[in-house]
Amino acid sequence: MFEKLTLVGIGLIGSSIARAGKLKGPAKTIAITTRKAATLEEARSLGLGDIYTLDAAEAVEGADLVILCTPVGVYADVMQQIRGQLAPGAILSDVGSVKGQVMKALEPLMPQGVHFIPGHPIAGTEHSGPSAGFPDLFVGRWCVLTPKPEVDPVAVDRLVSFWGALGSNVEVMDAAHHDLVLAITSHVPHLIAYNIVGTADELGEVTSSEVMKFSAGGFRDFTRIAASDPTMWRDVFLSNKDAVLEMLGTFNEDLSKLTRAMRRGDGEALFEHFTRTRAIRRGIVEIGQDSAAPDFGRLQTNAPKKS
Amino acid sequence: MFEKLTLVGIGLIGSSIARAGKLKGPAKTIAITTRKAATLEEARSLGLGDIYTLDAAEAVEGADLVILCTPVGVYADVMQQIRGQLAPGAILSDVGSVKGQVMKALEPLMPQGVHFIPGHPIAGTEHSGPSAGFPDLFVGRWCVLTPKPEVDPVAVDRLVSFWGALGSNVEVMDAAHHDLVLAITSHVPHLIAYNIVGTADELGEVTSSEVMKFSAGGFRDFTRIAASDPTMWRDVFLSNKDAVLEMLGTFNEDLSKLTRAMRRGDGEALFEHFTRTRAIRRGIVEIGQDSAAPDFGRLQTNAPKKS
Repeated sequence: MFEKLTLVGIGLIGSSIARAGKLKGPAKTIAITTRKAATLEEARSLGLGDIYTLDAAEAVEGADLVILCTPVGVYADVMQQIRGQLAPGAILSDVGSVKGQVMKALEPLMPQGVHFIPGHPIAGTEHSGPSAGFPDLFVGRWCVLTPKPEVDPVAVDRLVSFWGALGSNVEVMDAAHHDLVLAITSHVPHLIAYNIVGTADELGEVTSSEVMKFSAGGFRDFTRIAASDPTMWRDVFLSNKDAVLEMLGTFNEDLSKLTRAMRRGDGEALFEHFTRTRAIRRGIVEIGQDSAAPDFGRLQTNAPKKS
Repeated sequence: MFEKLTLVGIGLIGSSIARAGKLKGPAKTIAITTRKAATLEEARSLGLGDIYTLDAAEAVEGADLVILCTPVGVYADVMQQIRGQLAPGAILSDVGSVKGQVMKALEPLMPQGVHFIPGHPIAGTEHSGPSAGFPDLFVGRWCVLTPKPEVDPVAVDRLVSFWGALGSNVEVMDAAHHDLVLAITSHVPHLIAYNIVGTADELGEVTSSEVMKFSAGGFRDFTRIAASDPTMWRDVFLSNKDAVLEMLGTFNEDLSKLTRAMRRGDGEALFEHFTRTRAIRRGIVEIGQDSAAPDFGRLQTNAPKKS
């Protein structure tokens, strides 16, 4: 389908694209380029690609699909390096969690004839680096593409097929809408998780060791997402500030209402709220975006660890 | 070890005690009593106990261990029913998530000679009811007991052994400290999760169906705990209001700081915070309170559900 796919950056997402690509064949040749030599060597020893180079410009030469898989914060630098070598007719895409600001930053750097189709596969784990990837990461998950309306629909279709070959469902939408949707489904949840884990770590009255021991009551679910890659998340919050602040405002208003109900002893309001939220969970399980197994099915894994 | 264990209430926790008790033998006879006939019949058809009755007073007759497994909000009613039949020398315990207010409410109702040893097994799932329980629920998890200092240490030791037989680690602490620890490790996380799921459900700009589709970015982790039993959680927030409000105050201060860093574009502060929270996650995995598997190991479960 593609002759040469170049992955710029080979962390959790890049390496999962490489693995899935090797197995499922949507690109004949996979070239990998990274900034750090050690990461490139790790990718080579894992056998993730066909071509390995520290020279990003060389890596994209002759590629008909280039996907930026670095943190969003270095996109502009990468573009400066590669823009001279991008072939006319090539598709340039990315996997960043924020789309509006990325487009604003990259569009002026886009060479004539290159199809710029920003993308965001909504999949991941709390682990990072080339060895954290796996080929099924995208299976059954959604990938959002946010091309401008004037982008060649044939190029968009080719990228839709690429993600489909990796097992993704694909949806095309406007970048601003993507950023709002992701602010509530991903960015605010991460900020909240990072925040509460930080709060628990700094309490005077309750020790960190107590927080860890008794975390099975709910807290440990928050620690998983608060263990995600710090560089990636710093860039997300810096580049999707407006949408995150807007959603955070709504979150805070709602939290005040819930706190007020608690303070007043309004059991009925609490019960009504807690009943409503169950429906959303059911919906997520029904459409296959989460496991129905109690506690995500992880209980048996932990059971033998009794001390 | 115990002649007769009576479980008052047979939801997720009660039915897990019954199942573990049958397998691991810390009580010769298990009596089960519930308020609703349908629940009692469900327990009977699951074979959870030896004696089944809707009459709580009858159920506790001759029991040397009685454990209240109902929502905290009905404890006082239950005590009124059973106090006349509690045998001197019996241990009365419970599994409620809040200890201070429970003790204040129950102590005046405690008959002479009954050992009152409040308990809280820190284990659970988002599912509720008799069929949600399973015998390994407590394995490797902590159970906290909060007896007053004057309670007979022999009785406390017997209850420690009971929970040990079910696979739990046991810790004895002061009720007020328990309530503070649980406020941060469980109650505030649940309130936050309930809140953000509610917020997402009510947005004008983003539809519920979008929230569900794109939930794999982090949101779905929150929905799991926001699907927990509404009655139980209403009672938790009403009865541990002070500790929850205190911890929520600290959470809000910290969130303001993080929000300010984002607003100012202070990437360094964000990065430092996001790096620190990883350590807490590592600690929880190291002490066996969570799985190290990426995404709790649930990815493979979902993979085949591609639509």
